[in-house]
Amino acid sequence: MSKQLPLVETDTCCSPLAREPLTEPQSVELSKLFKAMADPVRLRLLSLIASHTGGEACVCDLTDAFDLTGPTISHHLKVLRESGLITGERRGTWVYYRVHPEVLARLSAVLVPGDAVVPA
Amino acid sequence: MSKQLPLVETDTCCSPLAREPLTEPQSVELSKLFKAMADPVRLRLLSLIASHTGGEACVCDLTDAFDLTGPTISHHLKVLRESGLITGERRGTWVYYRVHPEVLARLSAVLVPGDAVVPA
Repeated sequence: MSKQLPLVETDTCCSPLAREPLTEPQSVELSKLFKAMADPVRLRLLSLIASHTGGEACVCDLTDAFDLTGPTISHHLKVLRESGLITGERRGTWVYYRVHPEVLARLSAVLVPGDAVVPA
Repeated sequence: MSKQLPLVETDTCCSPLAREPLTEPQSVELSKLFKAMADPVRLRLLSLIASHTGGEACVCDLTDAFDLTGPTISHHLKVLRESGLITGERRGTWVYYRVHPEVLARLSAVLVPGDAVVPA
C-alpha cells in the first residue's frame, strides 16, 4: 500500500508557466499529476483528505461523502497515491491517507499567473 | 473561434482544498480544467502562450516547439479554449491566444496547501 512514484521531478519542477515555457519532460511529469486530478471523485477525495483534521484521513472517513462502492473509492485512492499526490500508511485495520503538501505547493506555484498575463 | 465556456463557476470557485472539502459541483467544474491540462502538449502550449511576450501568442509562434502537425496543435488549442483556460481572437490571418489569468489564479489558489497539511 506504500507504493509511491519518486517525487524527484516534481521536487525540482518548475518555474511558473507564465514566466517560462515548460520543457517537454516537465510537461510530461506535471500532466500525470493533473491527470490524477482530472476526475471529480478524486478531486473531492483529495480535498477531503487535505482538509481533514490533522491533515490525515482514514478510508472510513471518506466513504460517506460518496454514493460509490468501497472498491471504486479504493481505485481512486490508488490513482491519487500512485501519482504521488497522497501517501497511504496502514496502521492496524485502516489505511490513513495524507496529501504531500510539497506537491500541492509546487502545482500551485506553477499555475501562479505572471506579470505577462495580468490584464492591463 | 471565440467559443468559450462561461467562467461563472470558476469565478466563484473555490476555497483552498486543504481548507474545506470541495462540493460535488465544484469538483466537476475544476476537474474539467485539470483534464484540459492533463496532457503534456497542452501544458506546454499553455506555458508557451502564458510566458510569451505580452502574454499573447499566435499559432505561428507555437508550432516550432512541437514535432506535430498543424491540425494536431489546433485540436489541443481548441481543447484549451473550450475549457476556458485560454481565449483565441482572430486578427487578420492569425488567431492570437491569451491565457485567462484569473482562471490560472483560481486554480493556483485552490491548490495552496493549508495549515492542516503542513508537516510538523
